[in-house]
This record gives sequence, C-alpha cells and structure tokens, in this order.
Amino acid sequence: MHTDLKSPELLTTAEQLRVRVAQARAAGRKIGLVPTMGALHAGHASLIDAARRECGLTVATIFVNPTQFGPNEDFSRYPRTLEGDLVLLARHGTDCVFVPTPDQIYPPGFETTVDVGSVAQPLEGTCRPGHFQGVATVVLKLFLLAQPDVAFFGRKDYQQSLVVGCLIRDFGLPIELRVCATIREPDGLALSSRNRYLSADERQRALALSRSLALAARLVREGTLDTATIERAMRAELTAAQLAIEYVALADPETLLPLAQIDRPAVALVAARLGKTRLIDNEPITPLKNGTRLRASLSDPRE
Amino acid sequence: MHTDLKSPELLTTAEQLRVRVAQARAAGRKIGLVPTMGALHAGHASLIDAARRECGLTVATIFVNPTQFGPNEDFSRYPRTLEGDLVLLARHGTDCVFVPTPDQIYPPGFETTVDVGSVAQPLEGTCRPGHFQGVATVVLKLFLLAQPDVAFFGRKDYQQSLVVGCLIRDFGLPIELRVCATIREPDGLALSSRNRYLSADERQRALALSRSLALAARLVREGTLDTATIERAMRAELTAAQLAIEYVALADPETLLPLAQIDRPAVALVAARLGKTRLIDNEPITPLKNGTRLRASLSDPRE
Repeated sequence: MHTDLKSPELLTTAEQLRVRVAQARAAGRKIGLVPTMGALHAGHASLIDAARRECGLTVATIFVNPTQFGPNEDFSRYPRTLEGDLVLLARHGTDCVFVPTPDQIYPPGFETTVDVGSVAQPLEGTCRPGHFQGVATVVLKLFLLAQPDVAFFGRKDYQQSLVVGCLIRDFGLPIELRVCATIREPDGLALSSRNRYLSADERQRALALSRSLALAARLVREGTLDTATIERAMRAELTAAQLAIEYVALADPETLLPLAQIDRPAVALVAARLGKTRLIDNEPITPLKNGTRLRASLSDPRE
Repeated sequence: MHTDLKSPELLTTAEQLRVRVAQARAAGRKIGLVPTMGALHAGHASLIDAARRECGLTVATIFVNPTQFGPNEDFSRYPRTLEGDLVLLARHGTDCVFVPTPDQIYPPGFETTVDVGSVAQPLEGTCRPGHFQGVATVVLKLFLLAQPDVAFFGRKDYQQSLVVGCLIRDFGLPIELRVCATIREPDGLALSSRNRYLSADERQRALALSRSLALAARLVREGTLDTATIERAMRAELTAAQLAIEYVALADPETLLPLAQIDRPAVALVAARLGKTRLIDNEPITPLKNGTRLRASLSDPRE
C-alpha cells in the first residue's frame, strides 16, 4: 500500500519554506498551514484533510517548541515519531512538511516574546505559566514564515485556538482560522499525543474526562443551569476515577470568563493528571432553548 | 511653488494600505516604509529621500502611538501638525501616507504585546518602562500591514533601531532595515519633534547634549580610553548647562552593554530633561587605531 504514496516534500530551513510557499502562491494556489508538534494521530490527520479540501498547497509543520513547555513539563520525553509522522502525512496527501531545527525558529540571540492578553490568563495560563507566551511566539513566527491563507488548529486545544485567534485579529494577519472538531476514540477519549504515556489502567480511568463533559451537557439539557452544581458533578466524576483535577470550568466561549448560569452558549473545559500525564478536554455546552426553559420554569412551582 | 506638488495619497484604513502595497508589489515595485509619529522635520525628510532613492513606492506612516508613552509622558501634548506634514511629504515626493485612526492599529479587544528582550532593557528601557513594548508592538503591526521590503529609521533613536533590528531578525521578516544618519541643526542640536517644546533659553542650553557627545569623541581621539573618565566629563558638560541628566552611557553598539574601556567601536548616548522636555542624542565613538594607541602608550611613561 505504501509503494504508491507520495511523501511530502521535506523542508528544513525557513528559506526553503518561503520559496516553496511563494511558488505556490505565484501559481495561484491557496496555502493551508497545519502547525503540529509531531507524534501525529487521527486528530492531526483530520486537520490535513480539512486543509486539502480547502487549499491548493497543504503545509504541515513539525516542531516540538521548547518555549511552550514549563521547566517541570514533558519537553524532553515528548514523543518524537518523525518516521511514522511522515507516513501519516503521505497517506493524507500533505504537500510539504516543515521540520525546522530549533535555530531556524530561534536564531542566535532570539529573545522576542509575544503575549496575547486576558484570554491566555485563566485555565491553561494559570496551570502552565509561560505556555501561551511560547505558543503565541512560535505560532506568529510560523505564520510569518509560511504566510498561509488558512491555518488549521484542533478544538481539543480550545484555549490555544482562542489565543491564535487573538494573534490574527490583533496583528490584522490575512489568515483565516479553522478550528476543527476534536477527534475521539470510539469510547470517547479525545485523541492526544500524550495518550501514549498512559498505562492500561490510566487509559481506562482517562475516560472520566469525556464522561465529565457529557455529564455537564446532560445536566444542562435536563435543566440544571447553575454552574456550581454542574461543576460539582463533573469534579465528582473525575475524582471517582482518581484523576487529579487541575481545573473544571464552564466558561464563556470567547473570553473564557466563568459563567454563574448556563443561560447562553458555553464551553466546558477540564484538565487533570493521571500519574505524570496531564490531559485536557472540552466540549461546547448548548443551553436550553428559551421555550424549553420557559416550560421547565412553568412546571417548577418554586419559580 | 506648491502648485505643482503632488500630494501623497492619503490612506486611513489597513485595507487601503494593503491594497495599495499589493498593487505596487504586483507592478514589481520595491516598498519602502518610513514610520513616523508626525510633527515631521528634516530628519524625517531625509528618511523619505532615502526611501525614494531605493524603492519604487515610498509609504510614510503618521501615528502617534499611545502605547509607547508612559502615563506621565507627553502623549496628549505631542505635536500634531498633519497639514504641515503633508506638505513636507509632498515636497519630498512621498507616494502614500498611512494615517490610521487608533482602531485601525488597535482593534477592539486588542491586548497583544511584543517584547524584544535585553536590548530594550537599559537606558530608554529603564527611564521609560513599557516604551519599547509599545514600539515593538506597533512597529511589528505596521510591518505586517505594510509588508515593506525596506524600512527606514533614524539613528537619533539609536536604541529603537536596535529594537526594530531584533524584531526583524527574530521573526525572520523579509525586511531590510536602513538606519539613517541623525540630521542636526547647524549648531549641532539633533532634530527632534520635541525641540519645538523648548523655550529660547532651553534651546540654547540643549546644545550641551551634542557638545557632550563631541567631547566624548575628542577625549577618545586624544587617548582617553577609560569610560568612567569620559562619562564624568560628559556629565559635567550637561550639568554646567543645567540639564537634568537621565543617563550618560558609553556602550557596545549592538548590545548596549556598558563598556569599561573604549577599546573597540562604541556608541555614546545621552538623555536629559530641560524643564518638561526630554531629549536624547547619540554618536558613534571610534576608538583609537592600534598604531595610534601604541604610540600614545609609548609616549606615556606611566604605562
């Protein structure tokens, strides 16, 4: 099966990337960028597929960005699986893959940092100080090198997609952001490169993350609007599976500010540790429609 | 004389700027950018002239950037002289001038900041906290909107030109930086939009800035290599004219780290206040050639 696969063109320098993109643009092709840290899985593949559907040149990048890892995080053990990544990229028809050495991204003397402000502060921003500064800096750098028309990110990293959206808006970059649906295992676990850290037991317990999100959605569907009540139920779900909760939040989907009542569209976000592995997940929460809520209220003599 | 002057094309939105630049680029013209805060003088005119010599489209920008002024600085009283500015730009054959409203630069919700690291820390960075963050953020934004091939800055704002150089290097921007010589009044005062704040008496006393730089150059020419000695003489010159010194420095021209001895090329920088007006100036300092230094040493029995 692999014999008739065309490998993506491997680019390792910023100059090669610039030339390749300029060629495609001169030929009138739309440039789609899929930034990754490698250790690719079906979630990344769905981003490549989306880019291929919309763009004439699909460029993946693989760069395990040191500046978005904290000092006690998993930078050194983060999975590096370049050979397998190239097979996956070939299978999905990726045109080019940019695999820079660190000095292509961070030339000697590099000290510039980019901060996007309040949307980067809560949740991941609190648990992982400096993380989004690293993300914003490397994403802006990749955007400026690759000059894409469209950039594809996974909704699994929900807050990251908001950070990238801020960058694009604040600098007026001519880039359309596509945030693609989270891809899940059949049992609900969101795909993540970090899932391969999990033992068999942890893998089973990790299902509590997606279960807690489904629980939140069900509670809201059934009429529970009070955030504290919903979050308490989510925490109980995670704790029962012996996950060490980092945060459970029901927040505004644009600002990530906490909501007291689910009286408008929200997003539920969770982060927890299983042993040394830290996983995150999220789902949009659709509030009751007005009519439904009205009926619920009418049938409740206390209201 | 003004009747046959062609006014520069006035652009007020980011979109107008983008379209204009794209047209010129498609026509094969090189784009030259001259970012200013208006209140234009012969120093700015020299930047326009340099851009015209090198580029097919010369774009000036006029934007008094609020984020590079501290809370107690002169943002509100900074001179706004748009009519005169347009005449000067027309006289020097400027093709376009981008005069954005603040929301074109800082759209609602704008919170992103750019910091360039150590070169922005000393001197102006210490005296004006946040200044270079404001500069780096707005310059990067202007670069991304205008996409120039060449950008022109004045050497009078020496540390600013280093900050801009860091931005270009760190983000791999395809922009050449031209740092153009300081333009001075016949008596030596460096041109600055802030000179118009000076009373007649202050105007006279302000000459101590350029005199202190000339003094440093003369001392080095005459064989004084000890930085502390030179800086002491410069301070005496400034103090004699009743200037309130903010800093006097002899520094490495790339890093702005202080030098103990002028045994290699250096830059002398001064900042001082006259009443409410804060002025800066700088000059390169060329050390003695080895041969000259050797002869001086040989003739000095103490060495």
